[in-house]
Amino acid sequence: MADPRFFSLAGPFTLRELAAIAKAELGPGTDPQRLIIDVAPLETAGPQDISFIDNRRYVDTFRKSRAGACVVAPDLADKAPEGMALVITPQPYRGYALIAQAFHPEPAVIPGCHESAVIDPSARIGAGSRIGPGVVIGARVEIGRDCDIGPHTVIDDGVVIGDETKIGANAYLGYCLIGRRCRFHAGVRIGNRGFGFAMDPDGYVDVPQLGRVIVEDDVEIGANSTIDRGAGPDTVIGAGCKIDNLVQIGHNVRLGRGCVLVAQSGIAGSTKLDDFVVLAAQAGVAGHLTIGKGAQLAAKTGVMRDVPAGQAVAGAPAMPVRDFFRLVAIWQRQLKAKGKRDE
Amino acid sequence: MADPRFFSLAGPFTLRELAAIAKAELGPGTDPQRLIIDVAPLETAGPQDISFIDNRRYVDTFRKSRAGACVVAPDLADKAPEGMALVITPQPYRGYALIAQAFHPEPAVIPGCHESAVIDPSARIGAGSRIGPGVVIGARVEIGRDCDIGPHTVIDDGVVIGDETKIGANAYLGYCLIGRRCRFHAGVRIGNRGFGFAMDPDGYVDVPQLGRVIVEDDVEIGANSTIDRGAGPDTVIGAGCKIDNLVQIGHNVRLGRGCVLVAQSGIAGSTKLDDFVVLAAQAGVAGHLTIGKGAQLAAKTGVMRDVPAGQAVAGAPAMPVRDFFRLVAIWQRQLKAKGKRDE
Amino acid sequence: MADPRFFSLAGPFTLRELAAIAKAELGPGTDPQRLIIDVAPLETAGPQDISFIDNRRYVDTFRKSRAGACVVAPDLADKAPEGMALVITPQPYRGYALIAQAFHPEPAVIPGCHESAVIDPSARIGAGSRIGPGVVIGARVEIGRDCDIGPHTVIDDGVVIGDETKIGANAYLGYCLIGRRCRFHAGVRIGNRGFGFAMDPDGYVDVPQLGRVIVEDDVEIGANSTIDRGAGPDTVIGAGCKIDNLVQIGHNVRLGRGCVLVAQSGIAGSTKLDDFVVLAAQAGVAGHLTIGKGAQLAAKTGVMRDVPAGQAVAGAPAMPVRDFFRLVAIWQRQLKAKGKRDE
Repeated sequence: MADPRFFSLAGPFTLRELAAIAKAELGPGTDPQRLIIDVAPLETAGPQDISFIDNRRYVDTFRKSRAGACVVAPDLADKAPEGMALVITPQPYRGYALIAQAFHPEPAVIPGCHESAVIDPSARIGAGSRIGPGVVIGARVEIGRDCDIGPHTVIDDGVVIGDETKIGANAYLGYCLIGRRCRFHAGVRIGNRGFGFAMDPDGYVDVPQLGRVIVEDDVEIGANSTIDRGAGPDTVIGAGCKIDNLVQIGHNVRLGRGCVLVAQSGIAGSTKLDDFVVLAAQAGVAGHLTIGKGAQLAAKTGVMRDVPAGQAVAGAPAMPVRDFFRLVAIWQRQLKAKGKRDE
Repeated sequence: MADPRFFSLAGPFTLRELAAIAKAELGPGTDPQRLIIDVAPLETAGPQDISFIDNRRYVDTFRKSRAGACVVAPDLADKAPEGMALVITPQPYRGYALIAQAFHPEPAVIPGCHESAVIDPSARIGAGSRIGPGVVIGARVEIGRDCDIGPHTVIDDGVVIGDETKIGANAYLGYCLIGRRCRFHAGVRIGNRGFGFAMDPDGYVDVPQLGRVIVEDDVEIGANSTIDRGAGPDTVIGAGCKIDNLVQIGHNVRLGRGCVLVAQSGIAGSTKLDDFVVLAAQAGVAGHLTIGKGAQLAAKTGVMRDVPAGQAVAGAPAMPVRDFFRLVAIWQRQLKAKGKRDE
Repeated sequence: MADPRFFSLAGPFTLRELAAIAKAELGPGTDPQRLIIDVAPLETAGPQDISFIDNRRYVDTFRKSRAGACVVAPDLADKAPEGMALVITPQPYRGYALIAQAFHPEPAVIPGCHESAVIDPSARIGAGSRIGPGVVIGARVEIGRDCDIGPHTVIDDGVVIGDETKIGANAYLGYCLIGRRCRFHAGVRIGNRGFGFAMDPDGYVDVPQLGRVIVEDDVEIGANSTIDRGAGPDTVIGAGCKIDNLVQIGHNVRLGRGCVLVAQSGIAGSTKLDDFVVLAAQAGVAGHLTIGKGAQLAAKTGVMRDVPAGQAVAGAPAMPVRDFFRLVAIWQRQLKAKGKRDE
């Protein structure tokens, strides 16, 4: 059970309701009226909980689970322990997500501006929004309806934020236009000047960074991630992008829709990602490149050239992932041969 | 001498006292009543200072040092310059640490809540604790005795913090239970929602992150590091772990006791580290893996498979460190051979 | 045109004035009295704008640009479209930087301390400085003239900051002496205790970190970067260094003048960089090394040994960049050979 100090609980729901929520089917012989009171991991779920399995690695845990019900893909249904009710869908993780959202809805935003917030008189704040303690809101800022701005976050002059966007604590947003339903976590830094300067015998000369950051709707940005504003063009984060913690995005970068950037990955200036590109953790892409639609970069990949649409790459420098694993096999053979020679 | 603008100074101490503090022996012929007034690096120490040597790289500096005394391992004692008093221990770095703590004790926490702090009436704060300017403390928070909460740090609803824990400025803590004597540096982010979402034709579906972060006693977490809360299970940081700056720890990760995570390393979701695992800088571990007790990951290592207890690994993908250096030797030979062919 | 919500605009300027500002020559036949009203990227510039080209990759865009004028190197001047006025210099990026600074000067600092700032009575603040909302300034702090300290930034006891230095929001500075004309972006963490501890059967023993961070003049430090204070010696950042976002610098590191550290790079403790060293993104340098003047580390390089002055290195472990690309060519040949064998 989720710790009630941190999470509220809705429900209970019948299995019929949960199947509808998950867009799933009930397994044969299931009682649709059976009541479920919460979600829980397979290891700790009890007879009134619903769990899920999405990874064959956990089949043993599934077999031993005491969960009353489980969201499961059709091909794993026959591994279920006796008596477990099954909620069957080809996308069990999505199904579980929807069910967990039903049991644990986000707490409603309680509107109001904390008395310690510092708000420029020219700023406009939409109805239903909460402005936390110590928030600083600059001149001409526009914040939409039902937003939630966390404590000590600083919204610099001229920034525009769309409806229902939530921003965590201690963040900085400047020189940016933010869409609706975005969620930025604590310590995010958006709109600092890009890393642009020119050589000079007397020292580096700063290049004014005259672009903005445009964040489209439904974007999530993880804790302490940094997105620089454009140098002249804008930096653009497409709708629905998911950005994890400690990610760096340089000036003029353009992300298409639904890109996924896992923790500690980075993209250098002026590179363009088409829709649904995935960077796994600690991957990096050099500047001025184009990464095609749906390309996938394995963890720690270092990309120095354009990547075509749909290609999965790995290694530094990046190569097709199949080549990378063949190269690793070559290394292992060379090591074995050397081992024999050394004997 | 440490800059008195920043550090206070206790002492002086006799060499006899310092040897006791360091759990060490005095070298032959040393005057145990000789007074030492401070610690200092080998290069800058004078006749009233004590220094240390812990790395053969610095033997030349040791030989030329004017330090009055030095903490040293037995096997380097004969390299000491004439007249230098020796405090001999097989663990000179530990010995120096204890002596430096004696000369430069941490300043006492001056209790009290700054008038600008925003504290929910339901929160409880233990005796002797200091709550800095602008700190925000949510509902039902419990803070122990003799804690120190830095300016503008945000402690979200329900968080529990043990006695004598110190938290730097501008940090965020939510959805977590923190042990005693922990030290978190500025900008730490603990308890943000994990990076969990499911695919859907209409966009990603967020998976509610219903776990917590459990941080056991005596844990240090470096500046701007991020630890996500669990998705259902908890994220757990074992007692005595040392985590450096800009480290990322994903949801459901479990660290055993005394793990060391050097700067910019990262651990993906649901991976388990047994006790005393070391990740050097910029190392990364993929999700759902198990790293055995005392395993050591070299800098920049990329781990894709379980690592057995006690193994040292390097490279990406990771291999036993001895294999990695043999592979590097193979590459060097291949480069030399190619150089000859190219001539 | 730069978004007037975020950027003010000076000018217009004649081409003669702009050539003087850029230390450049006008192309043959150019009307020196022609007025230019703003800078703009090649793609979007109109007949009254000036743009620049600094990368052959964009020659096609240059050829099609409608920009009224362009800063260009002599060897690209003949690619200009008809009617475009040329401002010719061997360093077009520098020339553009100077022109863009003229059109978009930094807004003046409006002096004053916000009423919500918490300033120790023993602190001294120079004339013309702005202290933002919620700023916390500790005992004996000295801040120079014409500084700008962003909201919620914490300046700890004893820190000294030189004239005209600007610090973004939510930053932490402790145990440091900062030069003139520095610029630190939001979330910077300077002076936290270094990652120093010794082993002990009963747990790690913290080594007091008794040094400072010395930041010389004209240093830029990117968002959320971390610089630890020295363990005994100081950590030193030389004049004119440019440090990007999410960079980690360990205790006792010394950077010479004009070093460039690109995003997510890191330097382990006690390493010394001579002047003008460049670390590309995600590069890392192990501890206790020396990197010679003007050495260049490619992205993702992992340096385990000293690097001589002037050398360009790549790979992990690092090797001369030419060797690295030869090694990559060897791998590609081996992959091709294996592919043939597998057929």
